[in-house]
This record gives sequence, C-alpha cells and structure tokens, in this order.
Amino acid sequence: MNFAGSHILSIDQFQREDILKIFATADIMAPYALRKSQTRVLEGAILGNMFFESSTRTRISFGAAFNLLGGEVRETSGFSSSAIVKGESLQDTARVLSGYSDIICMRHPTEGSVADFASASRVPVINGGDGHNEHPTQALLDLYTIQSELRAQGRSLDTLRIAMIGDLKFGRTVHSLVRLLCLFTPARIVLVSPAELSMPAELVEALRSAGHDVFETDNLNQGISEVDIVYSTRIQEERFPSAEEADLYRGNFRLNQAVYTANCEPNTVIMHPLPRDSRAEANELDSDLDDNPNLAIFRQTDNGVLVRMALFALIFDVAHLVERYASDLPWRSTRRGL
Amino acid sequence: MNFAGSHILSIDQFQREDILKIFATADIMAPYALRKSQTRVLEGAILGNMFFESSTRTRISFGAAFNLLGGEVRETSGFSSSAIVKGESLQDTARVLSGYSDIICMRHPTEGSVADFASASRVPVINGGDGHNEHPTQALLDLYTIQSELRAQGRSLDTLRIAMIGDLKFGRTVHSLVRLLCLFTPARIVLVSPAELSMPAELVEALRSAGHDVFETDNLNQGISEVDIVYSTRIQEERFPSAEEADLYRGNFRLNQAVYTANCEPNTVIMHPLPRDSRAEANELDSDLDDNPNLAIFRQTDNGVLVRMALFALIFDVAHLVERYASDLPWRSTRRGL
Amino acid sequence: MNFAGSHILSIDQFQREDILKIFATADIMAPYALRKSQTRVLEGAILGNMFFESSTRTRISFGAAFNLLGGEVRETSGFSSSAIVKGESLQDTARVLSGYSDIICMRHPTEGSVADFASASRVPVINGGDGHNEHPTQALLDLYTIQSELRAQGRSLDTLRIAMIGDLKFGRTVHSLVRLLCLFTPARIVLVSPAELSMPAELVEALRSAGHDVFETDNLNQGISEVDIVYSTRIQEERFPSAEEADLYRGNFRLNQAVYTANCEPNTVIMHPLPRDSRAEANELDSDLDDNPNLAIFRQTDNGVLVRMALFALIFDVAHLVERYASDLPWRSTRRGL
Repeated sequence: MNFAGSHILSIDQFQREDILKIFATADIMAPYALRKSQTRVLEGAILGNMFFESSTRTRISFGAAFNLLGGEVRETSGFSSSAIVKGESLQDTARVLSGYSDIICMRHPTEGSVADFASASRVPVINGGDGHNEHPTQALLDLYTIQSELRAQGRSLDTLRIAMIGDLKFGRTVHSLVRLLCLFTPARIVLVSPAELSMPAELVEALRSAGHDVFETDNLNQGISEVDIVYSTRIQEERFPSAEEADLYRGNFRLNQAVYTANCEPNTVIMHPLPRDSRAEANELDSDLDDNPNLAIFRQTDNGVLVRMALFALIFDVAHLVERYASDLPWRSTRRGL
Repeated sequence: MNFAGSHILSIDQFQREDILKIFATADIMAPYALRKSQTRVLEGAILGNMFFESSTRTRISFGAAFNLLGGEVRETSGFSSSAIVKGESLQDTARVLSGYSDIICMRHPTEGSVADFASASRVPVINGGDGHNEHPTQALLDLYTIQSELRAQGRSLDTLRIAMIGDLKFGRTVHSLVRLLCLFTPARIVLVSPAELSMPAELVEALRSAGHDVFETDNLNQGISEVDIVYSTRIQEERFPSAEEADLYRGNFRLNQAVYTANCEPNTVIMHPLPRDSRAEANELDSDLDDNPNLAIFRQTDNGVLVRMALFALIFDVAHLVERYASDLPWRSTRRGL
Repeated sequence: MNFAGSHILSIDQFQREDILKIFATADIMAPYALRKSQTRVLEGAILGNMFFESSTRTRISFGAAFNLLGGEVRETSGFSSSAIVKGESLQDTARVLSGYSDIICMRHPTEGSVADFASASRVPVINGGDGHNEHPTQALLDLYTIQSELRAQGRSLDTLRIAMIGDLKFGRTVHSLVRLLCLFTPARIVLVSPAELSMPAELVEALRSAGHDVFETDNLNQGISEVDIVYSTRIQEERFPSAEEADLYRGNFRLNQAVYTANCEPNTVIMHPLPRDSRAEANELDSDLDDNPNLAIFRQTDNGVLVRMALFALIFDVAHLVERYASDLPWRSTRRGL
C-alpha cells in the first residue's frame, strides 16, 4: 500500500510487505525513542488525539510518539458531551475536527465509528480502537515485539512457534494477531483455552489455509511446552458459561513462575496485551514473573511508541528525512532500562 | 482599539476598523493554516486554554491556532471541582492561573464570569463563551466567512443581503452577528422565524438605526429568495411556546436541497454555527445539502482558526513578524480540501 | 543529595544544602518565567503529567514550568477508569507510563501511592501530592517565598519570625513547612490555633530540638504581633470537635485588614497555601487584604513555577546550560505584575 496520506483503520488493509515496511521504519525510530538523539521532522505538524473513550496509555503513547518526531498534540479525552448530545453526526464532527490538525488518532466506543469518521475527515485517521472491532496499532506492536524478541535470540518470524492463552473467543487482540500471522510464513500455533472460549472456527481455518500448524488444547502445561512465545490474555469471570465452569477452570490458564519453570523452554518469551490484573483472583499473568527476563510485557508497550512513530513517519512520508532533521539533545536522559 | 495586550471579551468593544484589521490579519494567516509554510513567531509563549465548560471544538480550535503560530498550550477541560468547591473566587483563580501562561482563552457556563476573571488576570483573556452572554470569536468567524464567501463571488460586505433563520429570540450567535452588522454598510437583512421566536425588538431597532433594510417573516421560502447568505440556526423543540405550536411549525424552518433549489439564487451561501442536528426530527439544515458547493458550514469552522490566529497575533503585536519567523515545513500536508 | 535522575517524593529527602541549591536554581529561572527571554534547554524532553486526582493549578504549574524550559507535556487528568478497574497494579502502570516520557509528575489520592509508582518507574518521578501524605513542591515554594519576601526587606531566613495560623493539626502544608524549618537556623515560631487543632506534639518537639523558639497560643492578635511572616490556613467547620466549639471560635482565626493593622508590624508578610475560601462564612483570609502589598499569596503561586523549573533543571542536570540555550523572544509579554 501507499502509506502517504492514508488512513490506518484495520489490519486487513496490510499486505506482508506493508507490515515489514512498518517494522523496518520502527527500527530506525529506536535512537529517538531511547533519547540518544532528537528529530524535528514533524515540526509544525499537529496531531488531533481524539479519544472519545478513555484510554490513558494508548492516548499518551500516540501523543508521545508524535512529540518524539517534533510535532504538537491537541487532544480530547472522554466523551464529548455537547455536540453529540445535540445530534451531530460523526461525519460533521470529522469535517470540523479535521480542520484543526494534520492527522487524527481516534478511539471511540462504537464499532465502525472510526471508519465512518475517516470517510469524512480531510486528514489521515489512525484507528486507536473502535469498540470490539479493531485496534490495529496494538496488533502491530504485538507482532513487532514477537519479531524483535525472536531476533534477539537469533531467530525469526519464519520459524515462529507461539501459544495463545486465555479467552480466545472474545479477545480482540488475539483475533487481530491471528489475522496478521496469516500473512506470514507457516508457523506452529497453539491455542490454549477452555473449550467454551476457544478461537472462532473461521480464524482457525484462516490460519490453516495460510499453512500454519494449529493445535487447540485446554491444557496449559502442554500448550506452552514447545513454543518461542507465550501470549497470555485475561479470562474474565463472566465470560465462562457458568459459575461452575469458572470454578472448574479457575487458575488453569494462569501463568506463574512455577508453571513457567516446569513447562517452558529456557528462552520462551511471555507477552500480554496489558493491563494485567494483579489481584489474587486474576486469571492471567502472576506478578512473580516480574523478575523473569523473558517477560516482555513492558517491552511491548515500549515498542508501541516505535510502531506509532513509524506509522506517523510513513503517513507523512518523512521516514527518509528523520535523520536529516536529527540533532543532539541538550539534556541527558536518565531513563532506566527494563 | 489597541489590540496589544488587550482582553477580547465582547464584540461591543470593536469598531468597524477593528473588525477589518482582524480580518486583514486573518487573511495573512491562510498559508500557515493551509500548511504551505510554518511560522514560529509565538515560540516560547504559553496559552492557558481554560475551558471550565466542555466545548471540544472551540477548545481545540484555539489550541491549534496557537500551535500554528509556534506557541505551546496548557489546558483544562470541564469543571474544576476542587478549588471552586472550596469557595475560591474567580478573581483568585485568575490571579493564580495568569501566572502560568502568557494569554488565556476561557469558557465558563456563567454569564459575565469571563469578564470577572479578566478583571483580575495579569495576562490578556479571550472570551471563549460565557453562558448565554458572549462568544465573540464565533461572531467574528461568522462575519469573516460572509466576507470571504462574498469576495469569492466578486461581491463585498457593502452590498450584503442576508437571511437569518430559526430561533432568533434566544440564539446567541445571531444576536452577536446582528450587533456586528450594525457596524457595516447598510444591507438587506431578512429575519425568518416563528413569530414567537423573533429577533428581540431592540436588535431590530439597532439594525434599522444603522441604516439596514430589515424584513421579518415566518415564511422560509420567501425569506431566502433574494439573499447572498442564508444563516440557519436550530429551533429546539422546547423553545416553542407549546407542543401544538411546535407541531404547527415543524419543518417550516428546515432547509434542504429541494427548498434551496426552489427558492434560492444559484450562488446563495448556506451557513450555520454548528453543531448541526442530523437526526430525522431536527429543525435545521438537512444533510442532503452536503454536496452543495455553497454549503459553507465547514469553511466557517476552518475560518475560526484563521480568526483566532489573527487575534493572537494582534494581542501579542506580532502580525508584522509572522512572515519573518516563517520557514518551510519538513513534511508535506495531505490535507484534503472541502 | 545528587539531584540528577532522582525522584522527588518527600521533603525528608532534603538536607539544608539541597534546599539552598534548589532555591539558587529557582533564582536563575526568574528571567525566563518573567518572559524576558526564553530557553530551550529541555527541547525534545517529554513530561508525563499524570494527575490521577484533579488539581488544575498544580497540574498547569508543572506543565508550564516544563514548557518554559522548552519541553513538551503529555498529561492525564482525573481518575483513569479503565486500567485501574481492571485490577492493574500501580507498579505495572508505572512501568508502562514511564516508557512514554522522560520525567513524570504525579498526583494520586492515596497516601504512599506516588512512592509505590516511583519504585517501578524507569524515569524520575516528582510527587505532586499523594493524599494527606506529601506535596513537596508546595513546601518548597512556601519556604522559597519566605526567603524571597524576607530578602526583599533586607532580612534572611537566619532571623525568621513566623506565625502559623489555623488548622495546625490536619494541615498538610504547615506540617511540611515545619519539617523544612527544622533544617534551618533557630527562629521564632508562633503556632496559633484552637487547642483542639494544635500542631502535633512530635512536630513541636522536632522544632524545639532543632533549636527554635516555639510558642503556642489560641490568641490570634497576640500570635501575629511580632513576626515577619503570617502563614494562614483554613479551618474547615467539620474539623472542630463540635458545632458549639465551631461557634465559639468562629472568626477567631480569620485575618482581615483591621486585625492586620491593629496587630501586625508594618511589613509583616501574609501567606496562604490557596485556594482561599472567599465566602462570607470562611475562616481564613479576608479579601479586604487584597490591596495590601504584603499579601504574598499570589507571589507564592508564581514562585511555584520557579521552584518546579528548578527541580526539572536539577533532575535533568542542565541548570548550568539554561543560559546557553537561551534566546530572545519574538514577541513581547504583556504580563502585568502583581
């Protein structure tokens, strides 16, 4: 695809080569995100960071990515009461707001709303999440993290073995990741969930059509035993068909250090879309994994900045100019690594 | 008036020559707002964008206008619970907040509050709307749009023919526009409303004293037949004296393409203060006008940025320096026109 | 202490020399805060202004201070619903958000929360208030104001005579100020409050151990008669043990111009942590003092910007570079003095 001036609404708009272009661009963003240098390549540009649904981290991540390229950010957070109560259409809102910025990132609680908005926007729109529908930059940062974790171990996406755990029926992030993986070289994909919360059949079929080996199981220990990546997601209590079933499965899909040590290979990387529930009754990642160097969950959110910088640079067609507009920072970063 | 360091609280503070100065300054802002170039003339300046009542578009418009001149924006949105609950006076709030910025834009739900605030502020204050009282930049952008639409047709404010439609009794924007028009050359002004929602007599009188020809009617078709500009506003159901009257008039003041084609001249420009109610039961502008090139409602909001940039430049006394601090943009805008 | 890269969580982390270093750095910030010049020493740096509890003035003050040094600000205001409802720990939040900025200012309603957050943050964290616990920059700006007001009169902290008035039992600001004063040369300290709301014994003891002369009284007129500084704080009605006691004491700790004239020395400086209750029934500073040139309450909030700029400069280790990155402002400030 031609990124210049394009909306980013869905991962379905990408071909494999597009994904690789985004990732290669994200790679060149690292020195700026790590504060070794600064670039002013988007100086004078304004991001309209329109979050009609709260999402502090996604909003701040987009805004910081834009600042890191030298641009300014105007934003809104939470539901805009006035205009919408007065019956304004999303198209009208889009025509107005797109007169105030050079690009818009938008989150909205309603499925399809961001595409509706984009249809009337005069500037490119990036979908920052529209209800249960799409959140393309999350999927991109997940796959970028998989690539970068594998690369750090001398491996590549071409030989990927991954287990996805938890609520595979309703989880937006695993659905998006599956659709992205369909673009890549055949891999070993293990789907670990209670049978009632298994991956939708059409997505399993899509993976198999793309040549992947897909295994489905409700046994966590077995599922995570021979993979490079464990991608854990939450199972909310209320997603189980009944309280009895919730009790039956309680803790069965929860990963902790003991389970990891007993079943995983030494370098198996642990991922999670965050936020992670750290309460005792949670059904996901235990905090006793926090000292495990293979826990990549915070490298994921860091990578989100790189991927968002990359999208901005590609949409504004300045990826090749980033270095030309670079300069030394007057100050020294004291950021501590993970 | 001398704009440098002045508050902008009410349209009543302007003379005709002041309006023309604002408009001439807005004209020179176009290349920057259209992203053909950037200027850093307000580099280092901070706008305190204090919206004690939500208004996403007005807030973002002021903020974007300040960014387009190279300044920074600090802001608040929605009611400040803490200090006001604790009984702080607006004067105290003003003395404190005006220590944090170089200029303040303020919206507040209470009439007169912005003037109270300004009386204690140590930096210039622009009224972004104080309840039913004033919203001077809306009136300015409306008149600027009228001028610019007329000019595009080779006409001028000197031969203006305008119809105002809808709730002329309670509508803040039409009242302000009328007061501005009193400063200009006599024009033909048609006021179209249900009798119960007609323009207040003192404003009609003011127009006539200024030399304008004023016609009042409750017939939409007749009212819009010989004008350059149709300025449509909403009639809220509850503004009608009774449900019966609302039923009687329902749709009578609603403009759509069929009504336009049947009654208007070919180049009659359609304006509206926005937001526009796009629901079926709305009493204002129909969305079937969206492809009509004379629909200027989004050019109005675009012009709002120019007018606000102009006010900032005049208050900071840098209108003559805008070009000196201009430079090329590293990136290329992909903004689509209307 | 070594400020570079450090968290600022509590005034207890400071020695006397640290305080003096902050104050000397604040002094060099004055020309930039007064808009005589600009500095871009923090260009490219991003402040994460994370206010999980509303506090418009503190949030804007931190953000403006960062802008005045040339940095950018990303922020949140009010409780982040989503992630916290989902059970995310503050440590997880910190690891994520600290990937989006170079320094974080944080306010949170829960005591100790900012320290918890800082323990997992990868960038320096400044406590902007954590419940009833700490708000170190308020204490610093108070003491800085005392020093600067004394200096303007040719006096110094070494001969300080101060009265603190009001709710000395629950008031966070007076407790912090007392702890800071323990680091300085013996002074005369008068504590004026109803007996039921007197300064906690351990803080009185700390003052005496540090060599200060401490006097406790419930007589306002007597208490304010021989001091350089009167630091007034609010007594909330509900803090009195009973309605009868509230009635008994009503107005007894309220300072107005008549009380000031009758009891204070001619140059006694009046301070207050703000916001000030300006309603008739308030138990604090009367607005008839507003024209008194010794009323320093708005100089306090102005000084807050200087102190926050100083902390940023010290944490980023650029205090010595501020001037090197200075340049003329393209525009002329119209800020009026107090």
